[in-house]
Amino acid sequence: MTAARERFAAEGYERATIRAIAGDAGIDPALVIRYYGNKEGLFAAAAEFDLRIPDAAGLPRARAGVALVDHFITRWEVDGSLPALLRAAVTNKAAAARMREVFAGQVAPAIAALCADRRTVPIRAGLIGSQLLGLALCRYILELPPVVGMSREAVLANVGPVIQNYLDALV
Amino acid sequence: MTAARERFAAEGYERATIRAIAGDAGIDPALVIRYYGNKEGLFAAAAEFDLRIPDAAGLPRARAGVALVDHFITRWEVDGSLPALLRAAVTNKAAAARMREVFAGQVAPAIAALCADRRTVPIRAGLIGSQLLGLALCRYILELPPVVGMSREAVLANVGPVIQNYLDALV
Repeated sequence: MTAARERFAAEGYERATIRAIAGDAGIDPALVIRYYGNKEGLFAAAAEFDLRIPDAAGLPRARAGVALVDHFITRWEVDGSLPALLRAAVTNKAAAARMREVFAGQVAPAIAALCADRRTVPIRAGLIGSQLLGLALCRYILELPPVVGMSREAVLANVGPVIQNYLDALV
Repeated sequence: MTAARERFAAEGYERATIRAIAGDAGIDPALVIRYYGNKEGLFAAAAEFDLRIPDAAGLPRARAGVALVDHFITRWEVDGSLPALLRAAVTNKAAAARMREVFAGQVAPAIAALCADRRTVPIRAGLIGSQLLGLALCRYILELPPVVGMSREAVLANVGPVIQNYLDALV
């Protein structure tokens, strides 16, 4: 799983091969096929991750925006599953479907715990997802120089209020 | 070029083949190779696009945020080059470098025309890029249901103020 996550994150879904992943792990590729069937099965298993969004009960309501950005950056940087899933989801339908499951099963419920108006939760969660994934895209994947060059504090100071706005403002 | 843009947009850089693109265009694949060398060369040619960001002189300053979102959505929807470039840039280093060129050569200058403080232009442009590309990612590529389901008016009403904030707020 570690080898698979690292390869998928570094090379993307299309270029990562079962042969290379098995090589990293020091096992026979046939063993990977026996357990996971094919690359899609291996990927879906590697992407069975938990975003571990902190329980909203522990978040001061007015600091939730900054806290969510901070948590997202940490998850992205310490766990290769999210980068791997995003890279794969851009060109692979099964991975995009898995991304929608993570969104519906983990992101939306966490946002629901922070919003009084249940009706607007999906749109708020979608807008928050758009800013956080766009931040990761520009900072870690496209590596746009000014976004790479921002300190973590600068990212929190600028993007935190946007997420807070998506939690609080009329939609 | 039309066939190349459509294939790169629909299938992503890795899966699109010169053979399929040549087939769509009704020409011999060898002819494509003769003119563009390889897939990377063909892609770079297909991605020679102009974002056509409207001249800031024509934009009311306080409406610039909404106008930029509106323009971005239109470019994305009518011209397959931007989707093709983003899909390719996620897994291909040459395409990511091309994306950084577009950012530096077209996005940053347009933002500069809207900002008094030249020093902060790159960061503002980077943050604006993160929100607009994240929006396109969630609405058109990952197809998160609540983001797909938003009307164009709802997108402008919610994301426009965020872009305006990135133009105006302290960074």
